[in-house]
Amino acid sequence: MKLNAASSTVATRILGIDPGLRNTGFGLIDTLGSQLRYVASGCIKTGEGSLPQRLKIILDGVREVIATYKPDQVAVEIVFVNVNPQSTLLLGQARGAAICGAVSHDLPVAEYTALQVKQAVVGHGKAAKEQVSHMVQRLLLLEGSPSSDAADALACAICHAHGSTGLAAMAGIGTRKRGGRLSL
Amino acid sequence: MKLNAASSTVATRILGIDPGLRNTGFGLIDTLGSQLRYVASGCIKTGEGSLPQRLKIILDGVREVIATYKPDQVAVEIVFVNVNPQSTLLLGQARGAAICGAVSHDLPVAEYTALQVKQAVVGHGKAAKEQVSHMVQRLLLLEGSPSSDAADALACAICHAHGSTGLAAMAGIGTRKRGGRLSL
Repeated sequence: MKLNAASSTVATRILGIDPGLRNTGFGLIDTLGSQLRYVASGCIKTGEGSLPQRLKIILDGVREVIATYKPDQVAVEIVFVNVNPQSTLLLGQARGAAICGAVSHDLPVAEYTALQVKQAVVGHGKAAKEQVSHMVQRLLLLEGSPSSDAADALACAICHAHGSTGLAAMAGIGTRKRGGRLSL
Repeated sequence: MKLNAASSTVATRILGIDPGLRNTGFGLIDTLGSQLRYVASGCIKTGEGSLPQRLKIILDGVREVIATYKPDQVAVEIVFVNVNPQSTLLLGQARGAAICGAVSHDLPVAEYTALQVKQAVVGHGKAAKEQVSHMVQRLLLLEGSPSSDAADALACAICHAHGSTGLAAMAGIGTRKRGGRLSL
C-alpha cells in the first residue's frame, strides 16, 4: 500500500473509496465549513493471489487506513456495472470487502454513483477522468497530480463533503447538503 | 441468526457457506477419516437495511459462527451469476462480505461451483435442490430436513470434505482428495 500523507487536525474527516479487485483507491479529506483540506491518499494493490487472499488485502488495507487516519465518515463509489457478469461479480466482491473494512470500524458509509461524483466535482456528469483528476488537484490545492485511483477516491470524498450542491457549496455559496445514502 | 447445534469434539471441522444478500446459509461438519458428522447449521438473515448495514450483518454473522464453532477450514459456494448485472453486483458484495468474515479469522477459504457441490453430494451436476437437501439429510444422518440455505451450505462443506471423489469417498472407498482452490 502506498501512502501520501499531509499533517491534519480539524473538523469532519471523510474517507473516499474507489473499489476495485486489482486497485482500490482511497483518499482522505478534512472539511471545515466550506473548506476542504487534503489529508492523504493512495492505492491498495491486491497483486496476483487467490480471490479470498485479495479480498483480505482490501479488507485489511481499508481497516489499516481507517486505524491510521481515523475518518468520521466513509463515501464509497458505486462501481461501474460491467457487461461481463463474471467481472461484475468480482468487482462486487471487492466492493463488499472495502465496505466491510469500513463497517467493521462502525463507520457510517454513504454511496455515490460516478455520475454524482462527477457532477459534484466537475459540474457535469460526462466529465472525463482527466477533468476529475484536474479538479481534485485544484480543489485540494495539490502540488502534483494524484494517481487515477486516488483521484477518484478523493473525488468521492469531495462529493460526500458537498452533497448535491456541487461547486456552489465548494465556493461557500448556499446551504450545505449531504447527498447519497448515509447509513449505519 | 438461527442456530441448530449438536455436540462435537473431533478432527477437521469445515464451515460451508452459501452466500446471499438476503439469506446467507451456513453449515458445519466434522470429518474423521471417511466419516462426516453434523455440527450445526443456520441462516444469517440481513433484513431490510441499507447495503452497508446488510453487509455488516453478513460479516458479523460469519465471524460469530466462526468464533462459536471454531472451524479449521471454510468452503464457499461460487454463486450463480444472474442475468441482471445489478443483482450480480449485489450478490458479489454479499459473497465478498462472507469471505471477509472467514479471512478476517485467517481461515483458509476454498471455492466450489454449484456443479461441483451437486456432483459431490448427489453424484451428478443437474440435481434438483430437493435432491441435494435429501442427500445432505441422509449423509449427515439428520432427523429433520435442513432449511434450503442451510442444506446448500452443508452440501458445500461435504463437497470440500470429499473433494472431487464424491460418493466414492463418502462410502470410504479410494483416496481422499480435496478439490477447489484452497487458499491463504
